[in-house]
Formats: sequence, structure tokens, C-alpha cells
Amino acid sequence: MLNSTILLNDLSFNPFIPTINHHYIRTKKVKNVILLIGDGMGFSYTTGLRYLNHDSQKGLMSPTIFDQYFVGAQSTYSLDTKSNITDSAAAGTALSTGYKTFNGAIGLTINKQAVPTVLEYAKFRGKSTGLVGTSQINHATLAAFAAHSESRNEYNKIADDYFDERIDGNHKIDVMLGGGTSYFFRDDRNLTEEFVKNRFGYVSNLQELMTNKNEQLLGLFAPIELPKQIDRDQTVPSLSQMTRAALQRLQQNPNGFFLLVEGSQIDWAGHDNDIVGAMSEVKDFEAAFKETIHFALDREDTIVIATADHSTGGMSIDRNDNYKWNPSVIKSILSTPLVIATQLHKTKDMTALKQHMHFTLHEEDLKTLQSTLEMEIEDTRQALINIINHYSSTGWTTKGHTGEDVPIYAYGLNRHLFSGRMENSDIARILFDIID
Amino acid sequence: MLNSTILLNDLSFNPFIPTINHHYIRTKKVKNVILLIGDGMGFSYTTGLRYLNHDSQKGLMSPTIFDQYFVGAQSTYSLDTKSNITDSAAAGTALSTGYKTFNGAIGLTINKQAVPTVLEYAKFRGKSTGLVGTSQINHATLAAFAAHSESRNEYNKIADDYFDERIDGNHKIDVMLGGGTSYFFRDDRNLTEEFVKNRFGYVSNLQELMTNKNEQLLGLFAPIELPKQIDRDQTVPSLSQMTRAALQRLQQNPNGFFLLVEGSQIDWAGHDNDIVGAMSEVKDFEAAFKETIHFALDREDTIVIATADHSTGGMSIDRNDNYKWNPSVIKSILSTPLVIATQLHKTKDMTALKQHMHFTLHEEDLKTLQSTLEMEIEDTRQALINIINHYSSTGWTTKGHTGEDVPIYAYGLNRHLFSGRMENSDIARILFDIID
Repeated sequence: MLNSTILLNDLSFNPFIPTINHHYIRTKKVKNVILLIGDGMGFSYTTGLRYLNHDSQKGLMSPTIFDQYFVGAQSTYSLDTKSNITDSAAAGTALSTGYKTFNGAIGLTINKQAVPTVLEYAKFRGKSTGLVGTSQINHATLAAFAAHSESRNEYNKIADDYFDERIDGNHKIDVMLGGGTSYFFRDDRNLTEEFVKNRFGYVSNLQELMTNKNEQLLGLFAPIELPKQIDRDQTVPSLSQMTRAALQRLQQNPNGFFLLVEGSQIDWAGHDNDIVGAMSEVKDFEAAFKETIHFALDREDTIVIATADHSTGGMSIDRNDNYKWNPSVIKSILSTPLVIATQLHKTKDMTALKQHMHFTLHEEDLKTLQSTLEMEIEDTRQALINIINHYSSTGWTTKGHTGEDVPIYAYGLNRHLFSGRMENSDIARILFDIID
Repeated sequence: MLNSTILLNDLSFNPFIPTINHHYIRTKKVKNVILLIGDGMGFSYTTGLRYLNHDSQKGLMSPTIFDQYFVGAQSTYSLDTKSNITDSAAAGTALSTGYKTFNGAIGLTINKQAVPTVLEYAKFRGKSTGLVGTSQINHATLAAFAAHSESRNEYNKIADDYFDERIDGNHKIDVMLGGGTSYFFRDDRNLTEEFVKNRFGYVSNLQELMTNKNEQLLGLFAPIELPKQIDRDQTVPSLSQMTRAALQRLQQNPNGFFLLVEGSQIDWAGHDNDIVGAMSEVKDFEAAFKETIHFALDREDTIVIATADHSTGGMSIDRNDNYKWNPSVIKSILSTPLVIATQLHKTKDMTALKQHMHFTLHEEDLKTLQSTLEMEIEDTRQALINIINHYSSTGWTTKGHTGEDVPIYAYGLNRHLFSGRMENSDIARILFDIID
């Protein structure tokens, strides 16, 4: 277990110096910090959202909610002896601690030294803190703000840290909303029970979330990750509903709060080269960003920052020299390829396709799909992904991450500090400096 | 021939209203405008340059010259009934006139109405004007600032326009430096002679450019495009040398100037999926940008804006889940694949390879290359491109353009007007408003 208090005391005597002094002017301290990370959400994803939201085939595209708050871009690379493309753990650690590190590291420097995160520092300053995401809440990006581990894969240890590590004797995280019952109810330990014993509320579906009144809250809505937005039923909260629930609680603290909101599965869909899933999750993230802007709009003590940790998949708007990207194809599909493939395999016939896909497939595509019904669900899913990428004209170059800079959006007090081009680690360094 | 004067008189009574009012504050008028367009230079290209410039495998990457001037991003899509991915003509027209238009259009609206360009307006305001690029100087992007045509392919007509169209009786463009003798010396017309008759200087190699003293100057250094930077010999000027020569002349005008500098072949290399050529041209463009910043640094009357018209090729930093992009491979190649392929075909043996490629190829790659020597030069070139993309881990999704937003860099007076997210057409609209 990390002795965060000692580290944080150190920190209070060793303020970070941002590397971007050229436009850095010390300004007012901020009471509330809301950081949103669209995992994998590079420029092609946010531009894609603008194309997708554009209802007409003609005229100017309306700006997205992100567009009007666009202020800068950041470089995402990690400091890894083997890789110069970051993973989510190293990028999350840079964004949470101000230190670039090796891939896989959670809250550690390249020398494997545990360093305080902005969430821990906020708690040390007497603020409330929250983690909200659509993956398990102990997944890499979220974990990088509240745990310290040599490996992002130590999910149980990270979940334990969420309970065991204290700042000045207090629990580190006041509101945790996302997936992950598998890691919190275990044979060796029932962390949920432990949290409840310590006066946390516990909820496991949307209805419970809506009616719960606890100020400290653990909400786990799936064994691991939540379904993607377009696949969710009425029992599963959206990212914006979880964000609102977190804000309602955190804002009760007169000292303010730090809230991290992650659109976790933009990246996962990117890894799958699944443009339907990717746009589903970008829209879910867009709604959560709107929720936070709405909160900050009538206040003068809050900063909202939205960014990505890296881009994923080498996704491109158009491919193969078509000069026409077709978001209408994406819009006409009502479930992710995984859900469609699973249902096709259940019924072993193709009629279910019409419920999920409101665009006409060619005879050849139907034949291809039909043939995969003799194979695995994954084969059908991959065939669907290929068909959708073909008709939407979406390009991909990798099932992994790519290295290009990613956007920064900001609103509120000290917004100007996040403008221009910076390193991912500068975001944390600025936050350490401006958190009241 | 267009009656630009009438259009420009109209313009002076109908000022443009930028669509980005939210952060638009009328400020001081600008004497000198330098606009640089890296054709096809999306975020993956400028990030790639940072990786490429980073000499060590360790430590933080140094910012590029672009990074410190990064202010915003723009949306590039055109208004085309068939395409929602722009070509260079439509994007150039948006950047030059403030009107998004159909692909292929040069200086026309979607209704095919000729509209004034910022270059024409600058001339109308008594300023000097210049066009500098590495393609033929009558190619789409450059042409969009000084001609009006339904098709970018009417190269002869566009070259004619450069001579024939006048603003208040004066030649529209005072300095033209790039490629294109094929279009200026023709059987039906010798435009070079006509320019010289009208007191323009004419130069055709670096030495002539360096010693020429004419205030108005036509410089054509190749039949069509210039060789790419890494393929140039001592007779061909770099983009920065042409830029410096243009600035020396244009700054003589007490009313100021408008200069357009295009890194024309970043895009062409992108179309070829040739990362060696692409990085060669980004570096050439980087040096030209440095030249313009150097000019503007000790002045308070000049704005420098660098941007792209779109991104090309769906280029991604890393592919196939490698998590390691290898700029060292790119740096170790001293000529473009075209030049290497041409030489291999001349000698019909592989020893020439070592002169051009300072990294070791596998036996299998050598066999593949050897086998293409029985085929066309293009086959050898394509084999080289594939090998280099493999070892550098560079991804591509198209031989055409892609739709994601592109960066804006700015320095000098009114720089803040170009911050945030805007439409490509807003750049021209702001320029019309701030040009003195």
C-alpha cells in the first residue's frame, strides 16, 4: 500500500513547473476540476462526430459541443524503451501525475517510483473526488488517477487500492461509477461490502442510481465493462447520467472536487476497427461533456477539460480514394456488430438483420454473412465490421494505437492555460498548480 | 477574363462576416499577410515531423517550429453534391475567398460565380503579392488565390489569367516562384516573354534567383513540379530560398504585401503513400515557415498563418499493432523511392541501393526488389514504398484525401483571431477583414 500522505506532503513543498512556460501565467486557483478523457478519441473521431451529427447532405456542418471549446493539442508518446506509441496506462499516468512513463505503468515514474496523482492531491486539499467510466472502474485510464502499480493488469490489486489507500485517513475516491463487479465481489474479498460498511452507498442499476441519496457512492453496473451506448437497455446508466449523479454528490463539498470522466470504450471500438461502436461511444462522451459544461456554465470556480489519451486504430474519414465518407450508413445501424452477430447466431437466420441494420446489403454481403453463421460469432462480427467499413468508407491501419497529437477542449477558469500545443504531462502539471 | 476590379469594388461595400463571432473581436489592421499552406499536412504529418526531428531514442521530444505557434484547427470539407471530402481546389478556394465550393473549382462559388480572393483584395489595397510553391505555380492551391475557373485542370487558362487579369490596371501577382515552364512557354503563347516585356525578371535556376534584382519576378525551376527536397541538386531552390527571395521583393512596398507559400508536394507524397517523400516535403515546408517567422519576429505589422488544406492518405504513425514508429528508417533513406527505382532500372543491379538506403534490407526484400527490375520503374517504386512503410511502421488507408480537421499555426498581429476551431472559409473571411 502506498503512503500517499507522505508523497503528497512532499508535493506540497515541490510544486511542479510546467514545461510550457512561454504562455503560462499564474492565475486564480480553481475550486472544481472536471477532467474528461475520451479514450482513443483523436481528431478523426471528433471530426467524424461532426459529420455524423450533420443531418443534411448539404450546407455547412454545425459545430459539435467540442468545437466551440477547442483550445489546444497534446503529444501523447510515452517514455518506453520498446515503444514510442503510448498505451492507456502510460498516457493516463502522464495526465494524472505529470510524469511520462513506461507502457503499462499505473501512477509510477519510469524509475517505478509511485508519485501522487491530481485526484490524490485534490483529496489532500480537502476536496471530494470521483471516477466515472464505461469500462470497469479499475481499468487503466481511471486507475492511473487513483492507484499505483507496475502493471495495469493487476485489476484486483487496483480495486483493493481504491479501498485501502487513504489520504489523511480518508477514502481516496468518494464516487466510483462504472463497470467491474468481477473485481469488487471476489472469493478472497468483498470490497463492495467493505465500502458499504464505511458508509458508502452501493447501486447496481440505473433505477438504484437515480434514487440513491448517499454522498459517497460505489456504482457497478456490469461484471466488467458496460454495454456500448447503442446496446444499453433501461437498467444501465449512460455516461452522462453517471456524470450527473457524481456531480450532484461532489458539489456538496464546500472545498470543491476533482472528477474524472472517461469515455472508455471509444478506444475499444477503435481496437476492433468498429466505426459503429466508436461513434456510439463518442456520442455517449459528447453527452457527458455537455453535462459538465452545463454544470460549469453558471459558475466561476470550475474548469472543465476534455481530451484524449491517444488515438486508436488509425481511423480515417474516407478510404480507398472514395472522397465520400458515409455517416448515414453508420446512423442506420442500431446495434454494435457484436450484438448483431450474437443475435444472428442465436436465430441462425438472417431476418434479424433488418431490425438492426436499416440499409440494404448487396446479395454478396448477405452470402458472406450467411456463410459465417456456420463459424464463430467473432467471424460474423468481423464480416459485419468489414461490410460497414466498406459502405461507410471508413479506413483503419491498426488494431492498436497511433501516435498523432490529440485535441484539448476546455471551458471555465484558467481555460487559457490549456491552449496551444503541449505534452500530455503538462495537463497534470498545470492542474497541480491551479487546484486550490 | 474576369473583371476583378468590379468584384473587388463590390467587396469593399460588403465586408464578410466571419462565422466564428464567439471569439471575434475587431482589432488592428495588418500590413503584411503571409499564408503558408502545407498541402495535405494533417496532424499525423506535423506530429511525424516531431518524431523525425527527435534524435535520441530517449527523453522528451523537442517541439517543432510549428508546435510553439499552434493556435487552432479547421474543418476542410467542401460543398460538393458528390463528395464530402475536399480536393485542393475547393479547399484552396475556401481559404482564398471565404466560400466553400465544389471540388475542382478555382475561385468560384458553388453557383460558379467568380469571387475575389484575398490576394486580389490585397492588390486592390495597393499591396504587393506573391505565389511560391513546389508544384507548377498554376496548380490548384496556388491557382485558387489568383485565378477563376470551373476546372483546376485548365492549366493553360490559369497561367494566362496570371498574366491577363489586372487589378486597377496592374498585374495581379508580383512574384511567382515554383515549377511550370510547360505552361508558360507554349506553342500558342510565350507568357514568360510577355511578363519580361512588362518589366518582370525571369529566372530558371537557383543561381539566377540569387543574383536577380528585379522587383517583379517570375521564376520557373522545372517543366512541371520541382524535385522533392531530398532529390534536389544545387540548381533548384528550396521552398525557403524561394520564400526569402519573395519576401525581399514584396517588403519593398510601403503598403505591405500578401504572400502565399505552398508546400505543394506533401500531398503528392501522401497520394503515393510515400513517407520518405512526405517527410522530405514537410521538412522543406518547416524551413519555409521558419523563414517567414524570422521575417515577422522583429515587426508588429505582420501576420503569419500556416495551415493545411486537408490531410492526405490516411497516414498514421504506427500500423499493425506494432506500437513503434521508426523514423530512423525514414531518416536513413536519402532519395525518394522514385529516384531510387529509376536508378536501379538504369543500372539493372542492386548495388545502387546502398547509396540511397542506409539500412539493411532482408534477403526477401532484396529478392522482391530484384524481381521488379524486369518490370516497370513504377513496380520497383511501389515495392520500395511497401518495404519502407513496413519497416517504418507507417499506415495508410487511401491514395486520396481524408476528412479530419487540420492544424492552424499563427504568429504576429491578430494571431488570436485564428485560435480555436473554425471552418477553412473563416480563415479567408478574417483575412479580408484585417488586411489594411
